[in-house]
Amino acid sequence: MVRALEWVDEEGALRIIDQTVLPTDERYFDITSVDALVQAIVSLAVRGAPALGAAGAFGVVIAMNEATANSWDPARLQSEVDKIRTARPTAVNLAWGVDQASAVMSQGIDAVLVRAKDVMAEDEAANRQLSKLGADWILERCGKSKVSIVTHCNTGALATAGWGTAYGIIHELFDRQALTLVYADETRPLLQGARLTGWELEQNGIPYVIEADGASSSTILNGRVDVAIIGADRIAANGDSANKVGSVALALACQRRGIPFIVAAPFSTVDLAIASGDEIAIEERDQKEVLEFATVRTTPRGAVGFNPAFDVTPHDLISAIVTERGVVEPSRPGSSLSGLAS
Amino acid sequence: MVRALEWVDEEGALRIIDQTVLPTDERYFDITSVDALVQAIVSLAVRGAPALGAAGAFGVVIAMNEATANSWDPARLQSEVDKIRTARPTAVNLAWGVDQASAVMSQGIDAVLVRAKDVMAEDEAANRQLSKLGADWILERCGKSKVSIVTHCNTGALATAGWGTAYGIIHELFDRQALTLVYADETRPLLQGARLTGWELEQNGIPYVIEADGASSSTILNGRVDVAIIGADRIAANGDSANKVGSVALALACQRRGIPFIVAAPFSTVDLAIASGDEIAIEERDQKEVLEFATVRTTPRGAVGFNPAFDVTPHDLISAIVTERGVVEPSRPGSSLSGLAS
Repeated sequence: MVRALEWVDEEGALRIIDQTVLPTDERYFDITSVDALVQAIVSLAVRGAPALGAAGAFGVVIAMNEATANSWDPARLQSEVDKIRTARPTAVNLAWGVDQASAVMSQGIDAVLVRAKDVMAEDEAANRQLSKLGADWILERCGKSKVSIVTHCNTGALATAGWGTAYGIIHELFDRQALTLVYADETRPLLQGARLTGWELEQNGIPYVIEADGASSSTILNGRVDVAIIGADRIAANGDSANKVGSVALALACQRRGIPFIVAAPFSTVDLAIASGDEIAIEERDQKEVLEFATVRTTPRGAVGFNPAFDVTPHDLISAIVTERGVVEPSRPGSSLSGLAS
Repeated sequence: MVRALEWVDEEGALRIIDQTVLPTDERYFDITSVDALVQAIVSLAVRGAPALGAAGAFGVVIAMNEATANSWDPARLQSEVDKIRTARPTAVNLAWGVDQASAVMSQGIDAVLVRAKDVMAEDEAANRQLSKLGADWILERCGKSKVSIVTHCNTGALATAGWGTAYGIIHELFDRQALTLVYADETRPLLQGARLTGWELEQNGIPYVIEADGASSSTILNGRVDVAIIGADRIAANGDSANKVGSVALALACQRRGIPFIVAAPFSTVDLAIASGDEIAIEERDQKEVLEFATVRTTPRGAVGFNPAFDVTPHDLISAIVTERGVVEPSRPGSSLSGLAS
């Protein structure tokens, strides 16, 4: 099975697959320093909110190893851990994973490593569980034995510690022989859909087509799919959900067509500390990502790029938020994510 | 002034700028055969519904010249003219331009050439007129002295016989010092926004940013723009409008935000023969366009591409259709495009 990341005990290293060069190349890095980890996170060599949670937890182990090797004082160690924690601003899971591991630092590095491995194992278990719940919900709501699905960005094994969230539901439906076809948005500017979801669909033998992001609205409006499923980088207490830019377009089209729009994420993505999506910081990435493609300049020399990495889908457009703890329907009055917290 | 196409009398040739290599290269073709013209239309070296109208009209001249040189019989001439007429299925203007010129074939080639030049001149005049009407409508509706605008694809001088449609309105607002900023969607898969609209905005000194198509929904929902303006390839009698794939996403976001969504096109784009958008044939283009970028493969080897070139925005999402004959508000009861026909 494909894994975005894996701890290599004998090396004391976090091994990641370089997601910037898939699907053309399959290349791995062994990460043993905070700087290398931050670089991997910022460049999106490792990405996806749940995968970042696990990477953050192992990052604390890496920082403690460096502290020992270089005799860092506790303040320096803390500032290095904070570098990891804030390497990307939108996904709540990265900070959450760092905090999970940091909480047991006083018990020594072995305890931290055990906690990091637990974070990873728990994420995969959560994904497998939410995938079952999501598949059940969809088949019941759609009243069909087979469905077609549109998805955006990558939410599979590469985006998580294992199995996948929105992609996990797709995979579960496929295993149940309840899937007709997946429409995968290519997901500009970095093409995580075309490159990464395409690669995973291909590996898993799931039938799919790749479409430009602009095509997804009419794919929905024309009745080509029964449901849209996406992941999330942060979910506010009221259900507003931040995800890869372009996601809200699918939600608007689903509302118009009257089909379900589903957000799938482990409960660690829910940030009950923020009331609504207004409080979610949206990362703006390097404008070069929209001004060029690979090394090919696609815009005039003087062009300025506007490059928000995420958008927020308001909760009233979301039919279901699927977590391992249960399914919440945020557009229904009285529904509550906080009810899952206890 | 930039022109997508121009008739060169001394060569008996239609000179076009090759829009597939802009903005990197500025390259021109002189077209003197039907096959070369069809190739230029299919490859999108010349594109944009109104520009295709003019190209179609000049195409009849080219076909008649070839008929003389090669002693084609009338049946052969007609079949060559039909090749041009059907080179692309969605834009009504191409067939309309061919028909305008064909109608005077019996009067000889000089009459056809005069008619083709008229088609071109009339398109530019229509665009300048609709741009004034559109700018007036926007400033009145928005109640502001300056507006920011999001647009999709390319609708400027390159897409028309001159000046532009949706882009013409932007240009007019800029000339009136009533424009703050243009958000130009890059418009995958062929990047007409990034490459062509970017190039025109740069040439005209209009302030702009390029964004991924997926960003336009949140650009609208977050209040960054006052209005969205697009062109059209075909408008049905009820106002349903076909335009570059991705357009309907802007319309849905505008409805949610409560800002105007405008379609700008010469009246020749209106096809009163079809009652609604259900009757508009949507061209599906080569899947390679979404599977690769330039020569870079971006998807797994086994991937299949789904590549509709257009989508249809339902008339109830359109605040105004702006033509040179007047502005119609199709979401209002009692509004009618056929009223402009007489």
